[in-house]
Amino acid sequence: MKQVFVLFVYFVDFVRNMAIDKKSLIYGRHPVMDAIHSGTPFDKLILQKGIQRDFENTIKKLSSRFNIPLQIVPKERLNKITGKNHQGVVGFLSLVTYYKLEDVLPTIFERSEVPLLLLLDGVTDVRNFGAIARSAEICGAQALVVPKKGSAQINSESLKTSAGALSKLIVCRENNLVEAIEFLQLSGIQVIASDLQAKDLVYELDLTYPTAIVIGSEGKGVSSAVLRKVNQRFLIPQKGTTDSFNVSVATGIILYEVMRQRG
Amino acid sequence: MKQVFVLFVYFVDFVRNMAIDKKSLIYGRHPVMDAIHSGTPFDKLILQKGIQRDFENTIKKLSSRFNIPLQIVPKERLNKITGKNHQGVVGFLSLVTYYKLEDVLPTIFERSEVPLLLLLDGVTDVRNFGAIARSAEICGAQALVVPKKGSAQINSESLKTSAGALSKLIVCRENNLVEAIEFLQLSGIQVIASDLQAKDLVYELDLTYPTAIVIGSEGKGVSSAVLRKVNQRFLIPQKGTTDSFNVSVATGIILYEVMRQRG
Repeated sequence: MKQVFVLFVYFVDFVRNMAIDKKSLIYGRHPVMDAIHSGTPFDKLILQKGIQRDFENTIKKLSSRFNIPLQIVPKERLNKITGKNHQGVVGFLSLVTYYKLEDVLPTIFERSEVPLLLLLDGVTDVRNFGAIARSAEICGAQALVVPKKGSAQINSESLKTSAGALSKLIVCRENNLVEAIEFLQLSGIQVIASDLQAKDLVYELDLTYPTAIVIGSEGKGVSSAVLRKVNQRFLIPQKGTTDSFNVSVATGIILYEVMRQRG
Repeated sequence: MKQVFVLFVYFVDFVRNMAIDKKSLIYGRHPVMDAIHSGTPFDKLILQKGIQRDFENTIKKLSSRFNIPLQIVPKERLNKITGKNHQGVVGFLSLVTYYKLEDVLPTIFERSEVPLLLLLDGVTDVRNFGAIARSAEICGAQALVVPKKGSAQINSESLKTSAGALSKLIVCRENNLVEAIEFLQLSGIQVIASDLQAKDLVYELDLTYPTAIVIGSEGKGVSSAVLRKVNQRFLIPQKGTTDSFNVSVATGIILYEVMRQRG
């Protein structure tokens, strides 16, 4: 029985390791730093706890400057990610290139398009994230905006659920969604958010204006700090007694309403 | 290595058996026949291949009369489903009660409600099925109509994805969707289907009429036999280049459009 258990543990570990595609990693101090400097897109950096203070500071600065999420973990975690000589740092390559909102917005205006942006506030489920990206691309949104922390990883599963849309859309990664909203508002874009307490129905809003829509998490909805900032809150009408729409369905409905109004 | 493989096979078999909740089974000739006669809802019946002709005919007649899908399989399959003395027949209990459309429709008219029905033509993914049920209940649809063959099983996963909606909705199981559509049309209900080749946009349709919406499968869409029968085909507008909406998102959009028009 003990033998079976040991084999089972090996099996689970084998499956877990399979989930990390070795091709999506860069490790070692110089390779990681060179890749960051050359603009290689990273999903996140993993740094060894208790590493030399100088190197820790260098990586922290790079993470902040290039807007890459950073995790500090014990050496054992890093050893599990790669058996190679990682020198205390591993970077997970991203499947998409992340842009900055301040670089993207001018190009939308230059193309004379009416901005339609989606801000994802805490959407962590990769399948929901993929389905939202799929609807966004279909409905002509120009970009998704995600926060640096607390967003779904853009991995092969979200890419697959998006039916390829994630590789066509522009994805902006911002330090802070509240600041991103302030920037959008200063740029003449109305920011709206769905809220179960709102009184206005989604089809009562004028969505022909330049618009950014905040989508909250499946469980908690839009965070209160973000809700306080938005120009308008709205409700999708509801007749039945079931809690609320699935978040990717709700997003599809709002995006459809934008398309319907813009004709 | 061979030993590892054998253990792995045992492990896979163990997991597969775990997936069948023993509480959801009825087996043995009299228990199964009694349960069918007393109206217990079944997802399907499994009958042993080469069983006595008399018993086979009895079960076939009951399956047809009570509209329960029937599979005929080798004895070994039945032995895998239950180690108990199954006497050649096992019934999988359903998590919902199935109704007949002809019994349900009059009650909708009696309540003076405007009928809104969803016909699922080949939706086999349990998560999509659950998400569709969730939107249907929220948007005030009175019933889901599924075919006897080729529909997702209503199991604990679809129930969970539906956020409980599947236990509130009426689910009708019909022998044949084409006949169900004819029955609906004779009862004064317009039957519409989404079709990527259609010219009318969904918001150009008058959905304030009694309406049944056919939803096709994720891959193939609505079957051609069904498409030929419907009163109207429609398109959800699309701006991007990604194939089409996820089926549960598309369903949410159509149901929202009904709610918007009915106000």
